[in-house]
Amino acid sequence: MSKIKVGILGATGNVGQRFVQLFANHPWFEVAALAASEKSVGRKYKEVVHWNVSDSIPAGFADMIVGRCEPTLSVPLVFSALDSTAAGDVEETFAKKGYAVISTASNHRMDKDVPMLIPEVNPGHLSLIKYQQKRWKSKGFIVVKPNCTTTGLCLALKPLHDAFCIKKVFVVSLQAVSGAGYPGVPSLDILDNVVPYIKGEEEKMEQETLKILGDEKIAITAHCNRVPVRNGHLECVTIEFAKKPGVSQVIKVLKNFKGLPQELGLPSAPKNPVIYREEQDRPQPILDRDAGKGMVVTVGRVRKANVLDISLTLLVHNTQRGAAGGAVLTAELLHAKGFI
Amino acid sequence: MSKIKVGILGATGNVGQRFVQLFANHPWFEVAALAASEKSVGRKYKEVVHWNVSDSIPAGFADMIVGRCEPTLSVPLVFSALDSTAAGDVEETFAKKGYAVISTASNHRMDKDVPMLIPEVNPGHLSLIKYQQKRWKSKGFIVVKPNCTTTGLCLALKPLHDAFCIKKVFVVSLQAVSGAGYPGVPSLDILDNVVPYIKGEEEKMEQETLKILGDEKIAITAHCNRVPVRNGHLECVTIEFAKKPGVSQVIKVLKNFKGLPQELGLPSAPKNPVIYREEQDRPQPILDRDAGKGMVVTVGRVRKANVLDISLTLLVHNTQRGAAGGAVLTAELLHAKGFI
Amino acid sequence: MSKIKVGILGATGNVGQRFVQLFANHPWFEVAALAASEKSVGRKYKEVVHWNVSDSIPAGFADMIVGRCEPTLSVPLVFSALDSTAAGDVEETFAKKGYAVISTASNHRMDKDVPMLIPEVNPGHLSLIKYQQKRWKSKGFIVVKPNCTTTGLCLALKPLHDAFCIKKVFVVSLQAVSGAGYPGVPSLDILDNVVPYIKGEEEKMEQETLKILGDEKIAITAHCNRVPVRNGHLECVTIEFAKKPGVSQVIKVLKNFKGLPQELGLPSAPKNPVIYREEQDRPQPILDRDAGKGMVVTVGRVRKANVLDISLTLLVHNTQRGAAGGAVLTAELLHAKGFI
Amino acid sequence: MSKIKVGILGATGNVGQRFVQLFANHPWFEVAALAASEKSVGRKYKEVVHWNVSDSIPAGFADMIVGRCEPTLSVPLVFSALDSTAAGDVEETFAKKGYAVISTASNHRMDKDVPMLIPEVNPGHLSLIKYQQKRWKSKGFIVVKPNCTTTGLCLALKPLHDAFCIKKVFVVSLQAVSGAGYPGVPSLDILDNVVPYIKGEEEKMEQETLKILGDEKIAITAHCNRVPVRNGHLECVTIEFAKKPGVSQVIKVLKNFKGLPQELGLPSAPKNPVIYREEQDRPQPILDRDAGKGMVVTVGRVRKANVLDISLTLLVHNTQRGAAGGAVLTAELLHAKGFI
Repeated sequence: MSKIKVGILGATGNVGQRFVQLFANHPWFEVAALAASEKSVGRKYKEVVHWNVSDSIPAGFADMIVGRCEPTLSVPLVFSALDSTAAGDVEETFAKKGYAVISTASNHRMDKDVPMLIPEVNPGHLSLIKYQQKRWKSKGFIVVKPNCTTTGLCLALKPLHDAFCIKKVFVVSLQAVSGAGYPGVPSLDILDNVVPYIKGEEEKMEQETLKILGDEKIAITAHCNRVPVRNGHLECVTIEFAKKPGVSQVIKVLKNFKGLPQELGLPSAPKNPVIYREEQDRPQPILDRDAGKGMVVTVGRVRKANVLDISLTLLVHNTQRGAAGGAVLTAELLHAKGFI
Repeated sequence: MSKIKVGILGATGNVGQRFVQLFANHPWFEVAALAASEKSVGRKYKEVVHWNVSDSIPAGFADMIVGRCEPTLSVPLVFSALDSTAAGDVEETFAKKGYAVISTASNHRMDKDVPMLIPEVNPGHLSLIKYQQKRWKSKGFIVVKPNCTTTGLCLALKPLHDAFCIKKVFVVSLQAVSGAGYPGVPSLDILDNVVPYIKGEEEKMEQETLKILGDEKIAITAHCNRVPVRNGHLECVTIEFAKKPGVSQVIKVLKNFKGLPQELGLPSAPKNPVIYREEQDRPQPILDRDAGKGMVVTVGRVRKANVLDISLTLLVHNTQRGAAGGAVLTAELLHAKGFI
Repeated sequence: MSKIKVGILGATGNVGQRFVQLFANHPWFEVAALAASEKSVGRKYKEVVHWNVSDSIPAGFADMIVGRCEPTLSVPLVFSALDSTAAGDVEETFAKKGYAVISTASNHRMDKDVPMLIPEVNPGHLSLIKYQQKRWKSKGFIVVKPNCTTTGLCLALKPLHDAFCIKKVFVVSLQAVSGAGYPGVPSLDILDNVVPYIKGEEEKMEQETLKILGDEKIAITAHCNRVPVRNGHLECVTIEFAKKPGVSQVIKVLKNFKGLPQELGLPSAPKNPVIYREEQDRPQPILDRDAGKGMVVTVGRVRKANVLDISLTLLVHNTQRGAAGGAVLTAELLHAKGFI
Repeated sequence: MSKIKVGILGATGNVGQRFVQLFANHPWFEVAALAASEKSVGRKYKEVVHWNVSDSIPAGFADMIVGRCEPTLSVPLVFSALDSTAAGDVEETFAKKGYAVISTASNHRMDKDVPMLIPEVNPGHLSLIKYQQKRWKSKGFIVVKPNCTTTGLCLALKPLHDAFCIKKVFVVSLQAVSGAGYPGVPSLDILDNVVPYIKGEEEKMEQETLKILGDEKIAITAHCNRVPVRNGHLECVTIEFAKKPGVSQVIKVLKNFKGLPQELGLPSAPKNPVIYREEQDRPQPILDRDAGKGMVVTVGRVRKANVLDISLTLLVHNTQRGAAGGAVLTAELLHAKGFI
């Protein structure tokens, strides 16, 4: 089978680089176009990227000429790692011109006919695509992934909601600096420090989670913090359930969780989307962020809570599962289900 | 007035060093004895301390000979910065021999007749001392300060509880490495990492707060995390009240809070024990930990919550207000009230 | 005596903030004008500054209206903390209009008639001012401070050069992130990392040192590195001398070093510009950077070397002695010598 | 071919864990015995190790029972990751009893008949083994690897010494915390700090390098610093040569360097032991330490120096090439040459 040609919009940024890494050895997709902002157009990728996710740009990408983020790329599918100042319009333009667009940007997340997808959690939302195609009068469409912090939270909440019906969620995040892109967080803001505020992040968690879980009755309160960690968002969560599970039941449900990507054997799907660690001091970013190639959410410390019912801690790799990796898994699902 | 002579037990550790710093220029107290564990006894302080809280040991302390932690010191008052493996028995021995003991260790915190004191919050608990003196058959007694994280929490909760009656509290801490003493947290455990567990800390917060506020009906759920910050514990808090205050009422009550130390004008009392910052990204350890010489709790981000009622973020300097500074303020209160 | 009114150009940046801090309580100078780039002009200082050097802007500065960097300020003396893209022309304009300009920028450092001053090291270079005044046809002039790393190096080298005649110098710097200003070094570049390159820095050290010491025959080789430290540049130095001193002679000369600022008792002059620490693991940024209010260079580890003669390690606070503090001391010297 | 059974002495420490990782998938060796200090003996590996080099102990090791560090293990070859307080005697005991011992400890490095081996640099030193066997009256022997910092330095110096004859070396290291083992460096010593001293390290670099290069006439001066980096030692080096090469000649020689491991195609041998990076801000720990699975030394910034001749910067992964990985490559060489 010849590989499906794809383009990367915003290829020079931090998430764009993660896409390049992931597609360097992908069995289904190959990158035929790198696009970025005007100042990079017409130049070699290696000359315009500040590569900082590994020692070297993967072979074959360094000399690719960077193109414009315009719908003239000879590919059926584009991944958008644009930042939100540019992503909204560009992605819409591509969709109208018939491209499938998978985006890590936040602009279209709350559009009613745009699936905000975590493949294990809400694959059924792909049925929204047909309404979008009507809107665009095109076979093109946009699928987005949620905020990285939301992604980690929903992967742990989904099986628990199905089993025990979640009513309330309290969540405090300790988020890595890579979540803010590059240059992102100045070192003077974060060395020997934490910052108890990330613009717009708490609102995103509180709203996106409801759309993804498809239940507007859940109440969520979030505090989001930036910590001096390179990669890996940690979340301290306390949950109230309608049905009152015991600690061991919660752990069992998390361990047994599998979704459509596991069933379909998608190339980027981890064996289990959620891993549970018994050690009392886990998960930790340095130890757990790369579990399952960064596609797994690691949960630990499930315990009874005095307020609400159950407390736990989870970790998600924000630029892999939470961004580029999540988008690639979404593309694999779209392909397996015939959308691409 | 000649100064009151005091001793420091556990003078070589991190909190012990903070005591030395604070007493270098104290108007009421002067250090007449430094005591530490057996291996340091009989040697000069400068030879046994790994001084790491400023560039130099304050003048006059470097050549003091370290003594044994035995109740033969010619001082009426000792400050115990011993760790919990040693503190319990040693402090009791001193109390029985007639010494006033002010401790930063956790051993006697939950003893019914031992005041666990935050001078602005529960000065009335000093009335417990007389029961203790009966128990010891001595004029000696022990007063303890709570856990550093509890201290920060209670200073913010106290005026709110008085005004609006607290029912439930969620709290997630991001705690500095100095809270674990020295050598404490290995750098390999915390560089580019956070650790979502501190042994015994969540239980302490959940129990000590109730004793200090004197209300067993409050329900508290805590998650405690270690972060790569030198000093300053940050706490993300969400509260349910019986009376439902608005955001501006909460802020007003916090700003107006004053306690007995402020009324008495104690030397280490800050003008206001709680400061409120309007900036949306405050408090931060690097900017706010030294406010009011580390004796102030800085609160920010008071806002409505979807679960429970009000969210806020607070910061306390864990080795100043949360340890040595809090103990010194307690000693000042004891002196002002005639206990010493 | 009424205070001398001064202006700060580039008042919103990191060094500009340090100036504001230093002038909040200066006995001779008071700030009458804050100026910054166009986007800040006409607004209150507190609205345009990202204050990050302490908890709060010092009283009296927060509501000052920021002006334009144009020579219409009613002050005889301006401090320039502009960055080098703007500093060159602006400073020249002020000098031509009769202002005394003291600059932390690099633009005019190598101008032959511009003193690059470290008050303890080369106060005689102030005699260059008269040539400059001729050039500008004005009573105005520019005095600059050297690069922060050079400042630390020269303060240690000066007494050694006078005593033993330096021939060759190796120096490797471990520089703090504040040296790059704000936002400066992205956290993704420096967390769990060091960067072995700082643009232009090695050349500056190799050239500026010769001008300041007034000896073109010294050969210097520098490696400059950025490390994850907030403040304080550490330098590992090995020196060859014409006269071969022993270790104890080197230490003695460093300890005895005093300059004109000490002789004149200038307000910002430390008692000794160089402190020697006996401990084998000093100086360290966290312990030593604030010694002497950040105006002292701390030296340690003087020892024999196998290549060249003597090795030592030194530390300088890069934004105090190395920038704002050094400039203020220069202003004090200018005033004491009648130039202002 | 059945695999050669090996034992790991000191299997629970940081370097011991690296050995476990490397042997989890080694084509020639398999671990038949894990040994550690008395308190771990008789217990399962997973119960006594504080595993912190990846998310999980590799399959098959977790339940192994830890044995005593005594020469009763049924393996011909042991790897010693003991610390230097224990290593000296234990390793000697094993050698006398006929075991081949490959050690990362420093105790026997300067023994005249003990090869201190970097396989690409001085494979000929294996001829010393026969003298050792005479001394022990046994077929057993000890081979050691040098200090991790020395390893990085020698891999870069060797081809340059062969080509241009090195006379003098000035080197300043910026060393990762993992070099001190676990718990090793306390976080309070290194967060927002650097420490300009590592006990014994400078002497090791200055002496070991001469033994490895086999040239006592080279003069080396070292400054060793600890920096807040997890893994990867950076070294700033300036060199004087007898023959004066140009920059491009130095780069060419480094790029072309290959040794016996490359010739023999040993499993752990990187394609090139030294990589040269053209970017002016490389090597960096975060980007380059894992190059060639941590077995490569990355060099950058080759340039003319004012003092001596040529400056460069290099990076070595201290616990891979500098410790466990280097020892495994040594074992492969010993096997390929018939010593095991």
